[in-house]
Amino acid sequence: MDLNNLVLEIKRKKSFLCLGLDSDLSKIPSHLLKESDPIFSFNKNLIDSLHEIIVAVKINTAFYEANGSNGWITLEKTINYINLKYPNLFTIADAKRGDIGNTSDKYAKAFFENLSFDSITVSPYMGSDSVEPFLKYKNKHTILLGLTSNNGSQDFQNFPNVENSLFKQVLKKSKDWKSSDRLMYVIGATKSDYLKEIRSIIPNSFLLVPGVGVQGGSLKETFEKGANKDIGLLVNSSRSIIYAGNGDNYLKRSYDVAKSYQLEMKDLLNTMDD
Amino acid sequence: MDLNNLVLEIKRKKSFLCLGLDSDLSKIPSHLLKESDPIFSFNKNLIDSLHEIIVAVKINTAFYEANGSNGWITLEKTINYINLKYPNLFTIADAKRGDIGNTSDKYAKAFFENLSFDSITVSPYMGSDSVEPFLKYKNKHTILLGLTSNNGSQDFQNFPNVENSLFKQVLKKSKDWKSSDRLMYVIGATKSDYLKEIRSIIPNSFLLVPGVGVQGGSLKETFEKGANKDIGLLVNSSRSIIYAGNGDNYLKRSYDVAKSYQLEMKDLLNTMDD
Repeated sequence: MDLNNLVLEIKRKKSFLCLGLDSDLSKIPSHLLKESDPIFSFNKNLIDSLHEIIVAVKINTAFYEANGSNGWITLEKTINYINLKYPNLFTIADAKRGDIGNTSDKYAKAFFENLSFDSITVSPYMGSDSVEPFLKYKNKHTILLGLTSNNGSQDFQNFPNVENSLFKQVLKKSKDWKSSDRLMYVIGATKSDYLKEIRSIIPNSFLLVPGVGVQGGSLKETFEKGANKDIGLLVNSSRSIIYAGNGDNYLKRSYDVAKSYQLEMKDLLNTMDD
Repeated sequence: MDLNNLVLEIKRKKSFLCLGLDSDLSKIPSHLLKESDPIFSFNKNLIDSLHEIIVAVKINTAFYEANGSNGWITLEKTINYINLKYPNLFTIADAKRGDIGNTSDKYAKAFFENLSFDSITVSPYMGSDSVEPFLKYKNKHTILLGLTSNNGSQDFQNFPNVENSLFKQVLKKSKDWKSSDRLMYVIGATKSDYLKEIRSIIPNSFLLVPGVGVQGGSLKETFEKGANKDIGLLVNSSRSIIYAGNGDNYLKRSYDVAKSYQLEMKDLLNTMDD
């Protein structure tokens, strides 16, 4: 799925909500545990329920790898289900990969060819040649970690100081890489104070914004400081949506939370039309 | 396996060689393709052949993920085989993981509990709380990316300048983290000019040194500048060993290359005894 279509979907659905599937066997409703693949059932039900009010799905690979090869099978089933049934959902492998060139080649093959994700999150630490293998793929997107939502982001992303920081260097330097139009960036919603400056460096790039919900970031601030003329934002929520309930009515609870985000997004998007 | 035992094994075998299993279906000897799991057969044969001249095995997860859930099964079989048959080999999941705390928890579970690796490589970009979940495990080791072997390492690891660089900040700052005695660091053999300074910051830590072989780093320089009183080095070679041959005699070719490294290591270790 290319970003032009994503923008059209955002405008059509009045939503820039990304559903994060951090699906954990110890947290899903217990009645699902009798299913042959409880996590897949959980994911499938959520996607079926929410597909009209979300525009993207982010699958956090850690939660699948924690279940070994069976977890990887669940991952495959989930992404195949989305690609088959909801091809207009933009898919993100939240994998935080990145290695020397011949190894990043293999990660790109794993996530772009075999699993057919539209995008993958990548750590910039190892530099341009660790990211280029992902950027080679047409119609695929590489979401580089910029300023992340966690407290530890202060340790190195603002090194050596806030004015002249690593994460700004990542934004600036990566703009010059080949096929950098295929780059997107992770910018935490808890870091909205930085969004205006970030937009001065990368005015046109799409941002993947985690940290709304459990982590406490503000959707309104994110939008007001981070949106560009093509909206340019995907706001992810994982736990606050998928664990909104854990009884028989969990889908209703999840829908209600996601719908409340979507309605807020609709209002924000409507302010742009003025 | 704890590091004291690793040091004993290094001294007993006169080797600090790590075998890197970047095992690729398109590069292994064609006669193995008739096996039910060619990559596992390839790995098993190499480990059986080399286990007395190597002290560690590094499994590069990208090469397994590129084969989907079947690749993950091969990964499981390989690590289980090593842990069962050669418990004195130090095992490394070369996975370059790292995410917010609740996600790194899951990666730690995947690699330390389910797969029972002794160690995992982790990217420092997201800071302390992305690494701490790995450091909580007793008798497990977290190998933080410091200065990597690839050209792109210059993009950010030496930001903002060589004197006051990000990678040095990573070394310095991580020393203060809880259970930092469980940290090791990736320092590329192609960066041996930096080893003396690196040793002034982290004199006691074990270094995982990739980049000897195909990438062109020098074993001798790495040892002379990087060894400490407990040796403190694991030098990895992947492609130059595992793809030394690709006919029926590939094991002999791989053994010969690995043995030549080991003999050079023996000579270097003997200079320490003086």
